[in-house]
Amino acid sequence: MTVYGPDGASVEVPTGTTAQDALKALGAVRGMVVAATVDGTPVDLSREVADGARVEPIAADSDDGRFIIRHSTAHVMAQAVTDLFPGTPFGIGPPVENGFYYDFDPERPFTADDLEQIEARMVEIVREDQPFVRVEVHRDEALEAFADNPYKVEILTDGEAAAEDPTVNPDGAGISIYRNDKPDGGHWQDLCRGPHVPTTKWIPAFTLQRVAGAYWRGSEQNPMLQRIYGTAWESKKALKAFLTQQEEARKRDHRKLGRELDLISFPEELGPGLAVWHPDGGIVRQQMEDYIRAATRRHGYEGVYTPHLTKGQLFATSGHLDFYADGMYPPMQLDPSSESEGIDYYPKPMNCPMHVLIYASRQRSYRELPLRLAELGTVYRYEKSGTVHGLLRARGFTQDDSHIFCTADQVVDEVLGCLTFALEVYRDYGFSAGPSRVALSTRPPKAETVGTDEEWAHAEDALRQALDRSGLDYVVDEGEGAFYGPKIDLQVTDAIGRAWQLTTVQVDFNHPQRFDLTYTGSDGEAHRPYMVHRALYGSLDRFFGILLEHYNGAFPTWLAPRQAVVIPISDAHLDYAREVESALRAADLRAQVDVGDDTMGAKIRKHQQARVPYMLIVGDAEAEDRTVSIRPRYGDQRKGVALDAWVAELADEVSAKGLGPQPG
Amino acid sequence: MTVYGPDGASVEVPTGTTAQDALKALGAVRGMVVAATVDGTPVDLSREVADGARVEPIAADSDDGRFIIRHSTAHVMAQAVTDLFPGTPFGIGPPVENGFYYDFDPERPFTADDLEQIEARMVEIVREDQPFVRVEVHRDEALEAFADNPYKVEILTDGEAAAEDPTVNPDGAGISIYRNDKPDGGHWQDLCRGPHVPTTKWIPAFTLQRVAGAYWRGSEQNPMLQRIYGTAWESKKALKAFLTQQEEARKRDHRKLGRELDLISFPEELGPGLAVWHPDGGIVRQQMEDYIRAATRRHGYEGVYTPHLTKGQLFATSGHLDFYADGMYPPMQLDPSSESEGIDYYPKPMNCPMHVLIYASRQRSYRELPLRLAELGTVYRYEKSGTVHGLLRARGFTQDDSHIFCTADQVVDEVLGCLTFALEVYRDYGFSAGPSRVALSTRPPKAETVGTDEEWAHAEDALRQALDRSGLDYVVDEGEGAFYGPKIDLQVTDAIGRAWQLTTVQVDFNHPQRFDLTYTGSDGEAHRPYMVHRALYGSLDRFFGILLEHYNGAFPTWLAPRQAVVIPISDAHLDYAREVESALRAADLRAQVDVGDDTMGAKIRKHQQARVPYMLIVGDAEAEDRTVSIRPRYGDQRKGVALDAWVAELADEVSAKGLGPQPG
Repeated sequence: MTVYGPDGASVEVPTGTTAQDALKALGAVRGMVVAATVDGTPVDLSREVADGARVEPIAADSDDGRFIIRHSTAHVMAQAVTDLFPGTPFGIGPPVENGFYYDFDPERPFTADDLEQIEARMVEIVREDQPFVRVEVHRDEALEAFADNPYKVEILTDGEAAAEDPTVNPDGAGISIYRNDKPDGGHWQDLCRGPHVPTTKWIPAFTLQRVAGAYWRGSEQNPMLQRIYGTAWESKKALKAFLTQQEEARKRDHRKLGRELDLISFPEELGPGLAVWHPDGGIVRQQMEDYIRAATRRHGYEGVYTPHLTKGQLFATSGHLDFYADGMYPPMQLDPSSESEGIDYYPKPMNCPMHVLIYASRQRSYRELPLRLAELGTVYRYEKSGTVHGLLRARGFTQDDSHIFCTADQVVDEVLGCLTFALEVYRDYGFSAGPSRVALSTRPPKAETVGTDEEWAHAEDALRQALDRSGLDYVVDEGEGAFYGPKIDLQVTDAIGRAWQLTTVQVDFNHPQRFDLTYTGSDGEAHRPYMVHRALYGSLDRFFGILLEHYNGAFPTWLAPRQAVVIPISDAHLDYAREVESALRAADLRAQVDVGDDTMGAKIRKHQQARVPYMLIVGDAEAEDRTVSIRPRYGDQRKGVALDAWVAELADEVSAKGLGPQPG
Repeated sequence: MTVYGPDGASVEVPTGTTAQDALKALGAVRGMVVAATVDGTPVDLSREVADGARVEPIAADSDDGRFIIRHSTAHVMAQAVTDLFPGTPFGIGPPVENGFYYDFDPERPFTADDLEQIEARMVEIVREDQPFVRVEVHRDEALEAFADNPYKVEILTDGEAAAEDPTVNPDGAGISIYRNDKPDGGHWQDLCRGPHVPTTKWIPAFTLQRVAGAYWRGSEQNPMLQRIYGTAWESKKALKAFLTQQEEARKRDHRKLGRELDLISFPEELGPGLAVWHPDGGIVRQQMEDYIRAATRRHGYEGVYTPHLTKGQLFATSGHLDFYADGMYPPMQLDPSSESEGIDYYPKPMNCPMHVLIYASRQRSYRELPLRLAELGTVYRYEKSGTVHGLLRARGFTQDDSHIFCTADQVVDEVLGCLTFALEVYRDYGFSAGPSRVALSTRPPKAETVGTDEEWAHAEDALRQALDRSGLDYVVDEGEGAFYGPKIDLQVTDAIGRAWQLTTVQVDFNHPQRFDLTYTGSDGEAHRPYMVHRALYGSLDRFFGILLEHYNGAFPTWLAPRQAVVIPISDAHLDYAREVESALRAADLRAQVDVGDDTMGAKIRKHQQARVPYMLIVGDAEAEDRTVSIRPRYGDQRKGVALDAWVAELADEVSAKGLGPQPG
């Protein structure tokens, strides 16, 4: 029979050939391959393939490959737990971003010692080279096999519970079990759709990380289980790099730095995901706002303002109450009357429909298009308190949000304009390498979308053209567009290698249709405008958090709360220190004399700790020569630099959006 | 016996002397006097006074005098209605700001014709010179007298209903009735505490204005009554001035101008009191924000940001949930758990407690004080939909809010700083005459307040000292302070004579105490800081509305959405028009070429209508000489002005915050 490989290669193989052998025959095994896809579906390497099948490798160091390694490691962990704590019922155990977990219902909570023992037993299981065996069974057989585990029984008998387990076969698709056979003849198994690595020895590197409480099926009405988290990687090197990154991320956690540098805090009184910005954080934020407002105006956008609350009617018309209710806060009822208990008002989760109201506030002509409305719009989204993560996943944040209303002919130029604008922003914030990933997401299955075939074809083509003209490398995420239109997403990678989604540019067929937007064309007829959403920072709050972690608090000079601190060697130099401060302030630079009682050494340490870009030491020599001695937050001291020249130098650094002194 | 007058005058009068005769004997009747106060209580002029009483006149042209005239006119109206529609039950009829109303329960709604007839009958009643006779009765007599009027019966038998009628004697204080005796021997009367003018002829000028539906006792569960509104004044001239002002206010209503000038609108979809700001309104608002932010920084404030939602706990600690719940939106419940249905979250009605959290985020030293935190903070207050009035009384608005934390010694300087800052703001916004009223409000009855006697004395004294040093004329509103501290309020008067409360400066003893705020003094001990609230614009949105009405849309040049429009006489002059536009933009001025197809005349009319300060007409002569012909929105044209000189002139006007061309 014939099987096909990547890039259209093909080869003749005997009937009954496995995916692994087919890949070998195709010469498609490069590096470590942990599983395969057959006609796009991931399967075990041991799966037999059919005549005419397209077989492709899943590399260990791909996202899909890591997911499989992590999933297999999760099984190994569950086996280790049941070996050490026989009879412990287990819940679900999926791979997640950067790792995996499994839920257990032990007689007592796991301790740090337990985790060490479990990890030691896992090392043994890996050494034992146990195979992962796939078995397909009837429901009755499965119920019998897991009769002692109430969680598995629930999954097998309750469709909703099954739907919540990402590792189980979907209801009605047949039930598969993965079994590990132990050297002593015993085995461990779980309901699982797979695929897995062939044997436990194929797990290259893993470690357990922590244990936490987690409600069964995420509901506080259910028993609290013990969730053990671990991570697994394609190599010891990759694991080590991840652990180093994680440790580094912990050190520069924006919540920790935010408090240490007196920038932001998350008062308990407000609730999770709601921050207050202290004066120094306020300066950085104000710079970020002023920057994006000025740039937005320069790019031909017009600034608008919209309220934070609205009657529910608006979000009924826009459709958000149908398709986004889970992400919204609950309603507040106002204006009770004899007819009703009140009208529902909501904090807005999106600015879009409000910008639509401004567009619709009067008749529009083609002469006015493109009309680019921009707002620093604060939105409120209901994240579960467990998923909130400081500013990076908050319950309220400010988007640099814009909506462009334009004709069909203008879409390419407008999208290209957004991309060019985004690159400018990245450069100015020090991501001069540009985006690390650019993805075009195309139409999802047609039945779930709004917009006609022609509109989708036109919009996808426009996005492609804009991407081609931008010169950016991009990938296509087929079918990953929103239901209301195709989109382009841009990521940047930070100083410790983490990728962050920032910019999004999306075509929206939903709003113009639901609000029946029109403009009068040059033909005098009414036409439907195209609507392009775009946010460059994404969320200003989140971008601030990313920058704080990326720079480990050492903001580029133009963003730094204080750009220079003047330190007089003794009180005799205070007058000259004030002169230096005045000269800097006159050039619109943020400078301050440290008049405190600390020793000079203590002052330098304090401001270095605060990541002030420059400390200016002034004593007799400096006062006499009208110079400054410059001690940067990182790097070597420069002595006797002429004051005027240095003020000009600093002003240039700020206006050029220089990074200022950085480590290394 | 002896009676005393204003300024300590005294005179001997016979026993049984009326207030009116006492005033005459005291020589205290100057101009028209409609009633008197005896030992501070307002009474009819016919009331007999006791030995030793202090008797003072209530002038017709004082606020109290107008209230009495309006109240008497309301009685005349009710008599006219019952004359024309016999048996019509009436509800309450109090004087209100600028007028009065009375509620009726007629068989059919009143028409415009009815109003004319009622007014005609009122003119007759005034001519008949009917006396206002005060009668004190027992409850049983009153119930008998009003047995046919269910509303009066309710007031007489239901203490709550009585408490809601501002004209009736408070429950338990005895029941008084005011009766008008008609020439035909009949009479009309109502429950009323008075006082009134002596006879109907004392009503100098009145008119009826409109009729509207109003629920009995303000509840939609009750019958809908017919409310007739009228106004009455101390003279025909004052009435005419008021009607002219009212007509002028209607013409320049900010909701109407906002739409005509494409600045703002109030979409039905959002709900009452919630506006969207269109691009041109956005420009004005951005100017107002940038102005106040820059000025605030210059005055030594630090910018902070706080979220718009919070757990209720914060407002429980601050006390708002006890004393301000009616002004707050209802709660949203988040994060349900097995212990509770969820935690209450509220949109914030005030920024104060959030700024307090920033203060309290770490230990503070006396060296850091005064700490001045400033925010453009958006707050949400629940106004009844009937009382919402565009931006002037909205359900959400942005305050230029600040809180100053300082030591006891710093209060005078800080308050003086606020006053000086306010005057600067008024000048820059064209209110160069400064505030039209400045009031110091002192401690209300002690039992209702927080703060010690010493704190109040110190704070009131500090406010007085600051006012004295400011050189501002001020009045003292005794007992009108907030429960949490004394305050200073500043009003300005607009172009059509209406007074608007803008700035408030308040001392707050409540927050520092409830949040247990401290700082470490130079003595190393913990001290409680003083906290001063202040807002200069008050609400940015409301101030915008006031400015829009004050200037009738002709914003000062620095605020105008477009400062100049260039109009080429023909297409041949388009290049030069673009040059003019570029020269203006290079000087950071908001200029635009009108490239439309309209005739020049139509363009001029359009931009004049839009209140663009300057239209620049450019043709052959201008292009050749590099000049512009300037057509201001009001006033005379200037021809052949050198372009460069004019750009500099306009830039100067903007930086000097000039008003630009204004009518008259």
